[in-house]
Amino acid sequence: MARSASPLLEQALADTAADIDRYFDALLAVPADPRARLYEAMRHAAIGGGKRLRPLLVRASANLFAVDSECALRAGAAVEAIHVYSLIHDDLPAMDDDDLRRGKPTVHKAFDEATAILAGDSLHALAFDILADEATHSDPFVRLELIAELSRASGPAGMAGGQMMDLAADGQGFDLATVTRLQQLKTGALIGWCLEAGAILGRIPHEGRAALRGYARDIGLAFQIADDLIDVEGDAAVAGKAVGKDADAGKETFVSLMGVARAREQAHALVDQAVAQLSGFGSEGDLLRAIARYVVERDR
Amino acid sequence: MARSASPLLEQALADTAADIDRYFDALLAVPADPRARLYEAMRHAAIGGGKRLRPLLVRASANLFAVDSECALRAGAAVEAIHVYSLIHDDLPAMDDDDLRRGKPTVHKAFDEATAILAGDSLHALAFDILADEATHSDPFVRLELIAELSRASGPAGMAGGQMMDLAADGQGFDLATVTRLQQLKTGALIGWCLEAGAILGRIPHEGRAALRGYARDIGLAFQIADDLIDVEGDAAVAGKAVGKDADAGKETFVSLMGVARAREQAHALVDQAVAQLSGFGSEGDLLRAIARYVVERDR
Repeated sequence: MARSASPLLEQALADTAADIDRYFDALLAVPADPRARLYEAMRHAAIGGGKRLRPLLVRASANLFAVDSECALRAGAAVEAIHVYSLIHDDLPAMDDDDLRRGKPTVHKAFDEATAILAGDSLHALAFDILADEATHSDPFVRLELIAELSRASGPAGMAGGQMMDLAADGQGFDLATVTRLQQLKTGALIGWCLEAGAILGRIPHEGRAALRGYARDIGLAFQIADDLIDVEGDAAVAGKAVGKDADAGKETFVSLMGVARAREQAHALVDQAVAQLSGFGSEGDLLRAIARYVVERDR
Repeated sequence: MARSASPLLEQALADTAADIDRYFDALLAVPADPRARLYEAMRHAAIGGGKRLRPLLVRASANLFAVDSECALRAGAAVEAIHVYSLIHDDLPAMDDDDLRRGKPTVHKAFDEATAILAGDSLHALAFDILADEATHSDPFVRLELIAELSRASGPAGMAGGQMMDLAADGQGFDLATVTRLQQLKTGALIGWCLEAGAILGRIPHEGRAALRGYARDIGLAFQIADDLIDVEGDAAVAGKAVGKDADAGKETFVSLMGVARAREQAHALVDQAVAQLSGFGSEGDLLRAIARYVVERDR
């Protein structure tokens, strides 16, 4: 799959990556005491890697509603902190047992397991610290809605619940409906938060966010199908992580249940559907349209 | 050490334990899907055990300012969720590797390591979900201050940072100042939050909370010294967890640095000092006074 990002998207990806790195670099200044190792582990995981897809989605959604860029960056950093914590814990020997992440050794390999557990827990706490600060938005109800939605999207009714289903999936022969539900929790809930966050920051009421929720659901599934395709067809060196793991684990995926051809077709249909959700927006929706296409055309 | 709780304290301990159990029982209803195991693991850790010292401290502090009891209970449940998540992660093989907690098998023993990691992460997220809800307080600034302070008290500048120092402590020969700082982060920060939470719920401004912060600092250290004494002198069956672990790990503690006699003396001096901090309060401070004494007289 050739990567064919538009110039608009290329610029937004590069800007977001630089902004997030700069934000975490300032946030995670290493203290001169025995906690230094903890901060170094957080920096190892949080700085200089990853597509930064979630902060980019927050930025693109916030663009629709002319939200201040600093507010969007802080919300993006919060969800990225949650995402990174989940990767650190997911990579642990007791979970997926991965040695490589974003082309670097995983945190428990570069440091040790105990430090990895605490680095994940620390990033988890920091996400809420970022959102609670008035620099994220002057309206306290906006901050509280971001916090309430993020705790739900990342907790047992969201990401953590999806990870639990994923652990239970090995050799269970889940059907397509169950795999879809699993992925909607495991990755979809957090992606949904990103799109809602832009609208929350723009003070768009709940009932005005249906199109964004639909877009999030569609690209979330498309993203996961693309991930499954990379796992089957991908090159570990390009992906920056181990591939072929799902088949080895005897785990049902969109690709194992639908086959490669139909899975790819479905991913593209979902992207078309996601783009159609944006029909109410003009050129300010172009970045979200470009992201939807990128989600299935990326190679990692 | 004989346990000699006052009738007032006995009643408050029993009421708080029952209220927290009831709260978590309702919050953690087990869903009929593959996430059931995750909720069962959270219930195993969060229901039916523990002294509930932190929710009790929130309740006792809230009592000073005539705070609604439901608000105090919710704040207490939030900090207990954080405390329980930290115990689950702390007990993991990569951390303290404990088999027994609150007289029951630890979560990774009763379930498995992956489920324990996710159960901890889930309780961590739920703590912020509880605080963000308007049922915790009608004033959004009160909820935001509780959230901001709890994320700081539990994150790398608080509890998680203290745990990192504790991991680094093995055979390092920390001095008394470093052990004090370690414990102020590891257990003191969360205890400090409990006392502040009562005042925040009562809308007492920051500058009016100095006595409570002093009380928290004093009982936090006294609590830890008592813990070290239990680790040296205690009975595992009574403590409900393994004892003698610090000496085995070659870790400096208040007891190893001061000796048993001086440590006990110091704990009692801290309790007297904590009680003296409450001189501005009348009988509404009696529960906090009783807790201060209980902290060093408990046997587990």
